[in-house]
Amino acid sequence: METIDYGTFEATLERSNRLEQALHRDPGRFRALTGDRPTGRLHVGHLFGSLENRVRLQNMGVPIFVVIADYQVLTDRDCADDIADSVYQLVVDYLAAGLDPDNGRTHIFVHSHVPELNQLLLPFLTLVTNAELSRNPTVKDEIKASGRQHINAGMYTYPVHQAADILFCKATVVPVGKDQLPHLEQTRTIARRFNARYGVDKPVFPEPQPLLSNAPSILGLDGSEKMSKSRNNAVMLSSSEDETAAYIKTAKTDVDRLITYDPVGRPEVSNLLLLLSLCTKKDPETLASEIGNAGASRLKSILTEALNEYLRPLRQRRSELEQDPQLIRDVLKKGTARARDVARETLAEVRQAMGMAYGVDQGDPQ
Amino acid sequence: METIDYGTFEATLERSNRLEQALHRDPGRFRALTGDRPTGRLHVGHLFGSLENRVRLQNMGVPIFVVIADYQVLTDRDCADDIADSVYQLVVDYLAAGLDPDNGRTHIFVHSHVPELNQLLLPFLTLVTNAELSRNPTVKDEIKASGRQHINAGMYTYPVHQAADILFCKATVVPVGKDQLPHLEQTRTIARRFNARYGVDKPVFPEPQPLLSNAPSILGLDGSEKMSKSRNNAVMLSSSEDETAAYIKTAKTDVDRLITYDPVGRPEVSNLLLLLSLCTKKDPETLASEIGNAGASRLKSILTEALNEYLRPLRQRRSELEQDPQLIRDVLKKGTARARDVARETLAEVRQAMGMAYGVDQGDPQ
Repeated sequence: METIDYGTFEATLERSNRLEQALHRDPGRFRALTGDRPTGRLHVGHLFGSLENRVRLQNMGVPIFVVIADYQVLTDRDCADDIADSVYQLVVDYLAAGLDPDNGRTHIFVHSHVPELNQLLLPFLTLVTNAELSRNPTVKDEIKASGRQHINAGMYTYPVHQAADILFCKATVVPVGKDQLPHLEQTRTIARRFNARYGVDKPVFPEPQPLLSNAPSILGLDGSEKMSKSRNNAVMLSSSEDETAAYIKTAKTDVDRLITYDPVGRPEVSNLLLLLSLCTKKDPETLASEIGNAGASRLKSILTEALNEYLRPLRQRRSELEQDPQLIRDVLKKGTARARDVARETLAEVRQAMGMAYGVDQGDPQ
Repeated sequence: METIDYGTFEATLERSNRLEQALHRDPGRFRALTGDRPTGRLHVGHLFGSLENRVRLQNMGVPIFVVIADYQVLTDRDCADDIADSVYQLVVDYLAAGLDPDNGRTHIFVHSHVPELNQLLLPFLTLVTNAELSRNPTVKDEIKASGRQHINAGMYTYPVHQAADILFCKATVVPVGKDQLPHLEQTRTIARRFNARYGVDKPVFPEPQPLLSNAPSILGLDGSEKMSKSRNNAVMLSSSEDETAAYIKTAKTDVDRLITYDPVGRPEVSNLLLLLSLCTKKDPETLASEIGNAGASRLKSILTEALNEYLRPLRQRRSELEQDPQLIRDVLKKGTARARDVARETLAEVRQAMGMAYGVDQGDPQ
């Protein structure tokens, strides 16, 4: 087998920019795959980092499958407590943020309910080496971050499961952050190897392209690298306006009263300016000079007001949606049924290509 | 996680003997899982080593699921050429040997067509460590035997896939050879861990018991450890009587004209006596003394006649069955449909136990 070539980040970025232009020209020609692990409610880091970009692609006219990766929750934890609630809240967050399954092009579904997608893991596992899985840099980082002594086989194999997520619907576009690039390269390698081995005359899978996000990444309010609910350093989409004010009040800043935008030298203050900038669409330097010598407390109160205003319509929709479990379930039902239809077709094609269509079920030629 | 305890072989054998007695007392209380990789037609080694034992269990009244493990063909080879024909011939061999799906208790099905079974691989992978998979002694041997430089992840994970085969139908009995014991112990560990984590109040999976075969293992006609078609040292069930005679004529023996049964000192001659014994139900020592000084050529001619006679009814059925592709397909269709029904129920239970029943499909509580 050929080695996985991760290429350079610059080259990937350039290809991603060309892809963005192509999406604008003819969005209907593409299909995007995106999703999350249901580990809790979403926060403003998710909103500005990925959710708004998905809504943008959707509204541009790109068909999108959104996977709720419930099995992947178990790669780095021993139980899936409250997973049903997390799935529910995730769908509420999605819809509140503007994902719109009623458009017929956006499909939200759960892993655990699409057996034909999950089955693709089987043939795909025979297309990758154990060595490749062990070398995946993002998996290595995640293993380190988990602090766990015993690493389960679900952790090592989840990039292959992700390949099944992407390839089952023949996605051509995958919005990713830099840390997800190794996974996407693994998926591209699997698609290539499958086609070379079983689809010489008629390739089964397209090679999906990464669409790198332009969104800046949001730090935790405590200045730590990642905003997350469990670190208690996040403003949740579901927080009330008072909770939001209280969270921002506790945000870490520094002693310099003069507010300046300096992400390297003053990461905490700059992170607040960045959030303010995302809410107001003004650039962070301008916002800094407007505040000037008024200090961090002025910055915080302006940000609180701007963020609460920005999130107000989303939160309004959110609280309405949360009262309607039947609607949420119907969205999942419809999306999952659609995913199964697509997965069933792809699996039939896969079996056909592999010489495993024995006339045993409806998907097989009789 | 606790370490896998393989126990001693003697203890396993004793438990297996007790299990055999229990099967006789109340066969309907058990469910057996067995199967093969479809890598080619079956030979007399398969017949005496496992096939007759399956038929014996079936006729005793034990319900049996027989999996044709088509994905597992790809763990140690790069393509599945002619896999459809191998599957077809395997079913023909099964039926000719006496497996009888018409009894309503014997179900023959193919892996690639039971997505709900294959999906169980996902949660199960999170219940084993990578280290455990790498330590499996049988997998290690198979990797060595494959002579391959790059080992694919399907090879490392197939014992977990086997766990899905066994647990999807809640099999309580698995007829095995000694080399399959590590896999079964892995399956038992997965069942225990699943129940401990998700089924404290209501265990989902029984722990399957190994039923060790009493059948002696048949060497290749060239005296090598394993009879196999690819080594050209096997009498196939599908061979003609003339082919059988020709194969046995080429069998390796030794220069001593006096025929004696001495498996350690004279493995080749003893292997022929063993085959003769299996066909005639006389013990090999008696058979040896009956031949006495007449030499290996006499032994070979007696064996040829006895084996051809023994196989005659099977081969007769075989050639009739081979002419009826529709019947073979119907057997697979019915067995696979039954396996899917059972797998669907088990998957629904698994999702329920894991808290992953979201009311999204029919298997979920609404």
